Amino acid sequence: MQQIVSDAHSYAARWIGAGKTADYIPQLAKADAGLLSVCVTDVEGNSFFAGDSAVRFTMQSICKVVLLITALQDVGFEGVFQKVGMEPTGDPFNSIVRLENVSPHRPHNPMINAGAIAVTSCVKGNSADVRFRRLLDTTRLLVGNPLLEYSEEVYRSELETGDRNRALAYMMRQGGIITGSVSQHLEVYFKACSILVSCREISYLGAVLANNGVSPRTGEALIPPGYIKIIRALMCTCGMYDFSGEFALRVGIPSKSGVGGGIMGAVPNRMGVGVYSPALDVHGNSLCGVKAMEYLSRVLELSIF
Amino acid sequence: MQQIVSDAHSYAARWIGAGKTADYIPQLAKADAGLLSVCVTDVEGNSFFAGDSAVRFTMQSICKVVLLITALQDVGFEGVFQKVGMEPTGDPFNSIVRLENVSPHRPHNPMINAGAIAVTSCVKGNSADVRFRRLLDTTRLLVGNPLLEYSEEVYRSELETGDRNRALAYMMRQGGIITGSVSQHLEVYFKACSILVSCREISYLGAVLANNGVSPRTGEALIPPGYIKIIRALMCTCGMYDFSGEFALRVGIPSKSGVGGGIMGAVPNRMGVGVYSPALDVHGNSLCGVKAMEYLSRVLELSIF
Amino acid sequence: MQQIVSDAHSYAARWIGAGKTADYIPQLAKADAGLLSVCVTDVEGNSFFAGDSAVRFTMQSICKVVLLITALQDVGFEGVFQKVGMEPTGDPFNSIVRLENVSPHRPHNPMINAGAIAVTSCVKGNSADVRFRRLLDTTRLLVGNPLLEYSEEVYRSELETGDRNRALAYMMRQGGIITGSVSQHLEVYFKACSILVSCREISYLGAVLANNGVSPRTGEALIPPGYIKIIRALMCTCGMYDFSGEFALRVGIPSKSGVGGGIMGAVPNRMGVGVYSPALDVHGNSLCGVKAMEYLSRVLELSIF
Amino acid sequence: MQQIVSDAHSYAARWIGAGKTADYIPQLAKADAGLLSVCVTDVEGNSFFAGDSAVRFTMQSICKVVLLITALQDVGFEGVFQKVGMEPTGDPFNSIVRLENVSPHRPHNPMINAGAIAVTSCVKGNSADVRFRRLLDTTRLLVGNPLLEYSEEVYRSELETGDRNRALAYMMRQGGIITGSVSQHLEVYFKACSILVSCREISYLGAVLANNGVSPRTGEALIPPGYIKIIRALMCTCGMYDFSGEFALRVGIPSKSGVGGGIMGAVPNRMGVGVYSPALDVHGNSLCGVKAMEYLSRVLELSIF
Repeated sequence: MQQIVSDAHSYAARWIGAGKTADYIPQLAKADAGLLSVCVTDVEGNSFFAGDSAVRFTMQSICKVVLLITALQDVGFEGVFQKVGMEPTGDPFNSIVRLENVSPHRPHNPMINAGAIAVTSCVKGNSADVRFRRLLDTTRLLVGNPLLEYSEEVYRSELETGDRNRALAYMMRQGGIITGSVSQHLEVYFKACSILVSCREISYLGAVLANNGVSPRTGEALIPPGYIKIIRALMCTCGMYDFSGEFALRVGIPSKSGVGGGIMGAVPNRMGVGVYSPALDVHGNSLCGVKAMEYLSRVLELSIF
Repeated sequence: MQQIVSDAHSYAARWIGAGKTADYIPQLAKADAGLLSVCVTDVEGNSFFAGDSAVRFTMQSICKVVLLITALQDVGFEGVFQKVGMEPTGDPFNSIVRLENVSPHRPHNPMINAGAIAVTSCVKGNSADVRFRRLLDTTRLLVGNPLLEYSEEVYRSELETGDRNRALAYMMRQGGIITGSVSQHLEVYFKACSILVSCREISYLGAVLANNGVSPRTGEALIPPGYIKIIRALMCTCGMYDFSGEFALRVGIPSKSGVGGGIMGAVPNRMGVGVYSPALDVHGNSLCGVKAMEYLSRVLELSIF
Repeated sequence: MQQIVSDAHSYAARWIGAGKTADYIPQLAKADAGLLSVCVTDVEGNSFFAGDSAVRFTMQSICKVVLLITALQDVGFEGVFQKVGMEPTGDPFNSIVRLENVSPHRPHNPMINAGAIAVTSCVKGNSADVRFRRLLDTTRLLVGNPLLEYSEEVYRSELETGDRNRALAYMMRQGGIITGSVSQHLEVYFKACSILVSCREISYLGAVLANNGVSPRTGEALIPPGYIKIIRALMCTCGMYDFSGEFALRVGIPSKSGVGGGIMGAVPNRMGVGVYSPALDVHGNSLCGVKAMEYLSRVLELSIF
Repeated sequence: MQQIVSDAHSYAARWIGAGKTADYIPQLAKADAGLLSVCVTDVEGNSFFAGDSAVRFTMQSICKVVLLITALQDVGFEGVFQKVGMEPTGDPFNSIVRLENVSPHRPHNPMINAGAIAVTSCVKGNSADVRFRRLLDTTRLLVGNPLLEYSEEVYRSELETGDRNRALAYMMRQGGIITGSVSQHLEVYFKACSILVSCREISYLGAVLANNGVSPRTGEALIPPGYIKIIRALMCTCGMYDFSGEFALRVGIPSKSGVGGGIMGAVPNRMGVGVYSPALDVHGNSLCGVKAMEYLSRVLELSIF
């Protein structure tokens, strides 16, 4: 397995230089486009990695999975899915059009920005701080690192450049999808996006999802089993932005990507995968990351299809 | 003329009870749907009225004309129209879709909400208070009433229910169309919408526009003549929400309507028209108001076409 | 007046070379981009012209005005406007989106392609030939040339490249807006688009519209007066594609343009204007033609606003 | 297994009466809404069924899977996917909007109507008859019935009501996605939609897909293994109209449904599922059919997620 992970790294490294780092936040644009790390954690808890695996990066949209898990625990299946749909859209992740054009005016799924903000509004707590702490604690548990923190600098940057997300939130409050303080919901959401993780940690999160919610190391049940298929299905149909369909076809691993350059995948009953490389393709997915996952899927026959 | 104005009132009164008052703000919904007033002010300054002409109501979208006049004076033709287009859209007045779908991402014209907010951002002043006072002073001048005020109660209501407008503003700030504090721009915009006028006063504003910017009473030039055709043309193509085309065809008077129930019209070189009746048709125009204007246009041959 | 027309020609000629001829039909692309002619016909029937005024070109969308006149005569106001709206759209002339997205699924106005095809379906006759002959006869009458013909070559070209219009027609037949043979309707429509006219002839059509439907030369009533305001209003709000709003503001003459390079304008009670220059701007309007009309409007104060 | 299939039938039968048969074609509307059949064929070739399993119905959109298989064999992966994307859309199956709004103007995936027509255009043959015969032969092979035929009556009905599909086809020919005769492509497509199958036959098709392209009965390789993951992935993300996302989450079986009332599912390496019940839900999927698949998935743990 170690050899295969190293080979996946070498294979993906051929595309270093081909993508470009996210430019909508200055902090993301500054990332070193040459970085690449690949990590696999199997459901026995063994990890194999290659490349710059110590580098930390912000979760960005990968946090949408943690938001969904927390919201499901807080308000249940019906509570979450009265505010957000389950359908892929084929639109860019930050699109606002369907909130106006398609009735009911709820966002189409929890993996686009509008949907993730609606899901955030389901996370309980009587202050932004309490709500974010609960999310951070859940994330720490799921990635197996009790010292996880968020980047205040990236969070500030998100706040400054977050007008599109504000527009989405106000459209949804107008439509009755969310209630309460938009700025509080966005504080929680932006901080969640800014949580710093390593490639190894997201492979561990993937392994928990692969292992039906049970920690591969401690055997502890971290996510109710009833939610696992929901999360893995949504990752598969909606997790890779408007490349989700092609990714299903080419890779076939339920995955969630973030514009920070990370991709987290969960191969049911087998393993979690984490890749990191900050240069993105046109869809907003890590370009080398997708290549590494293609390689792993082909060689290890990981596609669920 | 007095007879014709009275007849227009009687004619329009047949439709009392057919529309419904705006429901998106509680204060507007509370208006007495049975009210109806009609006023004509000719370019010599003579006024003729019928009905409940002392009733005051909020300008709502009629203020978009004053916003445009003030912005043109502050930043000029090029300054305004680099931020907003000149094209009718056929969409509802509060639509957000084109800000995402159509490039460049500026609003299509100054008579839809997004456009009016962009125009508001052109009104100069170093505080919301200063900027609104300037708008209020211009409005007082144009309607010939130095005591004009806005309704604090309606303004509060606009603030509370203004999430759609916030969404529009944040989309535009993301797109670089507006800069600065969204909440300040919206304070100015919402207060302008809340200015209280009478039917007679808006007919006077119409008369100034009809008289090429010159006050019919004092002979003073209130609006630079170069801006008059711009304003009248935009009122004609975009002033009656997504009924503008049909209104051009059926009435043919450049007009601007507001969901408060007012309609202000300007018949070039002849007269201004003001009508008020708070029950609206499906497009958001005063239902009896449109009927009164149809009557006046037919009998007095006011259509510019 | 002759001097002014010549000056308008000289002024507009400065932009020769700036636009490009329509490329969606090979026959239009082959036109000499250097051609420019300007003609004014006043309501007394006097014509003044400058430039290549003998050149003949296809009416293209200018025929939409004749289609509307004929359909109004055939099925009346209600008959036409149950199939087509009266609202400008801000969309490109050949757009299909609103036929799906906006209910009722009728085209927004008679000046976009979908609307013109719906209007064509109202023109009576038991064969394509009969229906087109009737249109041709009406056009001959309105432009004052009993020898007018259509270009078989351009018609063939329209047929070959007309898939977008076929898509529009089938969408409308699905929606119940049109009935009968799509290919017959399109034969009539494409032939109408292919009618060959001169700049002088369209200025004469404009003069008839300006003169409230009465022939300036013969005094004969050619169009029922009740339809004149409808036609002039629709030309004003929708006649210049998605530049109609700006044209209203800058020129203010109810006009209809065609991608063949012609623009026909009607100044109520004063004159008709015809301009021809085949190089188009980005909106599909004759670039030099718009310039010539701007000049005439400014110098002769022709704006209706 | 027989007991479970019978139980699935009993469970689903509770919803008989809740949906309504497709009304866009008279022949489909006439179907008996009380019919329900369920069939499972495992990868060893054993079949288990319950209900009205002898009833034949038209494949409708289920034929899109056979079209895709045939097109992949005729022009290969690159040939097919230069004409059609791989992304789910969240739009209704017959939507035209994205062909205009989203560039490149190819349909989003092979499972919506536009995409299936584009895929049909890839099926080789020098006449509609030859092309359809090839499709029919492939279908016969894949469902294991050499006597399969299509319904001339339903085909005629499709032809008569197929204007929306014509619009899609002409939009695509305009955009260069398809070439050649639209009416020939549609003849092939409509006939493919009209192929008559039984519930048992589509479960056999599902079993071939589940068994990686190999016939469970004969052991013959019917579909190149390289295409199997493509087909199963597209069925999963796009196969159940705009319910695909929710179906993935609730059932998790790559499936394709048709408005004739059939649903065909493929559980990798385990079994094919065929259900038939002509009353549809709001998305166009067989209402009882979805219930039966939910039951089977839950009891047999068939979800791939």
